[in-house]
Amino acid sequence: MAHSRISPPIILLNFKCYLEATGARAVQLAKYAQQVSEKLGVVVAVAPQAADIRLVSQQVKVPVFAQHIDPIAAGSHTGHMLAESVLEAGASGVIINHSERRLRADVIEDTIVRARGLGLTTTVCANTPGIAEAIAALNPDMVAVEPPELIGSGVAVSKAKPEIITDTVSRIRRINKDVMILCGAGITSGNDVREALRLGTQGVILASGVVKAKNQLAAIEDLASGCRR
Amino acid sequence: MAHSRISPPIILLNFKCYLEATGARAVQLAKYAQQVSEKLGVVVAVAPQAADIRLVSQQVKVPVFAQHIDPIAAGSHTGHMLAESVLEAGASGVIINHSERRLRADVIEDTIVRARGLGLTTTVCANTPGIAEAIAALNPDMVAVEPPELIGSGVAVSKAKPEIITDTVSRIRRINKDVMILCGAGITSGNDVREALRLGTQGVILASGVVKAKNQLAAIEDLASGCRR
Amino acid sequence: MAHSRISPPIILLNFKCYLEATGARAVQLAKYAQQVSEKLGVVVAVAPQAADIRLVSQQVKVPVFAQHIDPIAAGSHTGHMLAESVLEAGASGVIINHSERRLRADVIEDTIVRARGLGLTTTVCANTPGIAEAIAALNPDMVAVEPPELIGSGVAVSKAKPEIITDTVSRIRRINKDVMILCGAGITSGNDVREALRLGTQGVILASGVVKAKNQLAAIEDLASGCRR
Amino acid sequence: MAHSRISPPIILLNFKCYLEATGARAVQLAKYAQQVSEKLGVVVAVAPQAADIRLVSQQVKVPVFAQHIDPIAAGSHTGHMLAESVLEAGASGVIINHSERRLRADVIEDTIVRARGLGLTTTVCANTPGIAEAIAALNPDMVAVEPPELIGSGVAVSKAKPEIITDTVSRIRRINKDVMILCGAGITSGNDVREALRLGTQGVILASGVVKAKNQLAAIEDLASGCRR
Repeated sequence: MAHSRISPPIILLNFKCYLEATGARAVQLAKYAQQVSEKLGVVVAVAPQAADIRLVSQQVKVPVFAQHIDPIAAGSHTGHMLAESVLEAGASGVIINHSERRLRADVIEDTIVRARGLGLTTTVCANTPGIAEAIAALNPDMVAVEPPELIGSGVAVSKAKPEIITDTVSRIRRINKDVMILCGAGITSGNDVREALRLGTQGVILASGVVKAKNQLAAIEDLASGCRR
Repeated sequence: MAHSRISPPIILLNFKCYLEATGARAVQLAKYAQQVSEKLGVVVAVAPQAADIRLVSQQVKVPVFAQHIDPIAAGSHTGHMLAESVLEAGASGVIINHSERRLRADVIEDTIVRARGLGLTTTVCANTPGIAEAIAALNPDMVAVEPPELIGSGVAVSKAKPEIITDTVSRIRRINKDVMILCGAGITSGNDVREALRLGTQGVILASGVVKAKNQLAAIEDLASGCRR
Repeated sequence: MAHSRISPPIILLNFKCYLEATGARAVQLAKYAQQVSEKLGVVVAVAPQAADIRLVSQQVKVPVFAQHIDPIAAGSHTGHMLAESVLEAGASGVIINHSERRLRADVIEDTIVRARGLGLTTTVCANTPGIAEAIAALNPDMVAVEPPELIGSGVAVSKAKPEIITDTVSRIRRINKDVMILCGAGITSGNDVREALRLGTQGVILASGVVKAKNQLAAIEDLASGCRR
Repeated sequence: MAHSRISPPIILLNFKCYLEATGARAVQLAKYAQQVSEKLGVVVAVAPQAADIRLVSQQVKVPVFAQHIDPIAAGSHTGHMLAESVLEAGASGVIINHSERRLRADVIEDTIVRARGLGLTTTVCANTPGIAEAIAALNPDMVAVEPPELIGSGVAVSKAKPEIITDTVSRIRRINKDVMILCGAGITSGNDVREALRLGTQGVILASGVVKAKNQLAAIEDLASGCRR
């Protein structure tokens, strides 16, 4: 199963719809991720836009995540995102319920089941500790808590609201020992990552902190350095 | 501008989320479209899934349409479909508001404006003659009327409900002389296409009639033959 | 038919979800509307929240509009707004597609048809002149254009962006001679109303300009005075 | 707090958008509920449409639930359902996330918080045991599991799929000792209720089994008889 490959800690780079991470620039950024991953021995996964999944996954060996899939069966669903399609294009995982693409509760469960059936690693985002616990009850591979007000702020959740992380960890661990816990929002440095891990997470998810960095490679390397003990 | 290339009649093949038109099979199907297009001199455009747009457009010269885009600017829009992304991947057009992906009225207008700004040909679907007229007021390149109850039925709208086509044509032409008018739903044969053109349209949009055909190439060739006088 | 009662000009007061226009205060505000309506001979319609429709319509004679209905048939639709329900509660009209409750294009058409079938006057909102023209193609009783950026701003559309009104009027009149045209966004005074009418509309729609006024009665009276020649 | 009044078992009658439970007929049905409630000492709550909440709650003493609220603050939210509005109209509780009105995960949490802050009893519906457990993590007053395929079927979940109920109960009780657990879908008789309680629930939610009954009063009385030991 694809998701058995990932061992913590993990840095998940979300390319969102940034032009700095579209098409040829998505490939370049993914290569940086791979360089750092190989150099520091840290999993750095990338989540390019749908139209770039195949291009990126043909060029790098790091895990490639789709940013969204719909829990549909193959068939007449014009304009939707089919799990088999992103899988054939080379994705090994999927982000579900990102704060910029929130889903109905039942759709989250259906999507987890759908992805798991194809061996796609599931990373489900949560905007609060409560939602994080609720999602943990659905047994995804990873839950990523991200307070939306800090996303893209440059103010790291691990510094500004550490209680959101510790509350998430304790609520989730009460009911689910296995799920990996990530945090995100405002993460930009190795220190932010180190602090996130110290608070009980197994990794981080971020976007602008790397995508918008003047030196993307250096930004990833700094982040990954925070994973080392 | 990309859309200036298309001259009627047009056959627009929507690959939807069919496995028979995913990944490698999307490329095969697009090649059939190209073969027929070159042989019969008819525009046969293809609309693969997002993750297949680049793969398909690298292999064929027929127009490639995205099945959907969001009217977002580049930026933090995880899991959305950015116009620049599908454009860089090779799309020259986009389907908007398909019956399986209906949009808010304001989103339709925003999407048309967004696509037009990048030179993407806009094909906006309508479920009724009224909606077709309303959409024509927004000046897309093409309006495609498709009664949803006949989509995928194998019963051609041009035979079963010709009044929907003629009503659409007369309502649209009252306010918009330029927009190309397509029809769809249940189209499977050259006769269906011939009848659609005779009723005043400039082309057809279809999916299962080709994608699910035992002989996809023969199905496309039959359809295209209906475009000849 | 209920909507045959309304003759222009019209002032449509949208109570939104303001506490100052909820429950007992909705009744009070509606009574002010009626007072002014009777005094100045201008139609002042009110649109209270769903739970207040019956209470308000039992106490006043001015037209009462629902703020939204769903285009459903009676049946198993928990949490939806049934046309028959608001009709039995005393509504004679309905606002459709307000900027704070935008709808899919097909849903707008279905809702117009549904409301018309029961004799409910339909006022469909549009965020741009293009959408206004598109909606006029669907033949509602009234189209109300409101640039969303001016809603609640206190800066009247009729002063700040008169071209939006004149563009809307000319685009709509090209295809529909009958529909009443309203405008809204930032309207607070009789002068705003006078200007709106001078630009070719048959009325205005507003909310905070009255609901949030220190003297609601005086605010309505001022608005209505703008309807007099 | 309003919800402190409810002690199990509970029968929650959802009026949906049935004409047989609209307006004057909603009042009649609620009176039947009250009659049975007083006679048998069982809580029979009613959930009329929004426009009927005040009318119903003025005429009966049984708990009245809204079928939906939006997690908005008072203000400019045309066409939405404000908690304060249904509260002032007489509601003491609210149904959230019914299968016919499913919500985003984050909206469910926000709605629970919003309702709780006003003392409204929260009954959150779940389509599966997994979603039921997830929702229990959000600490509503009641969770109601209803397999959607049995809703309105007349085939009781307690007979056809008892494992859904027992699975729900054991998953929820693992993480939440306090929340009341209801089940629904296909419930029509006292035997169905008795079986539901025996399987570990504290009540049932139903609609058509009562609303569509030839003798609504007799139907409610039969259901309530299932609550007696």
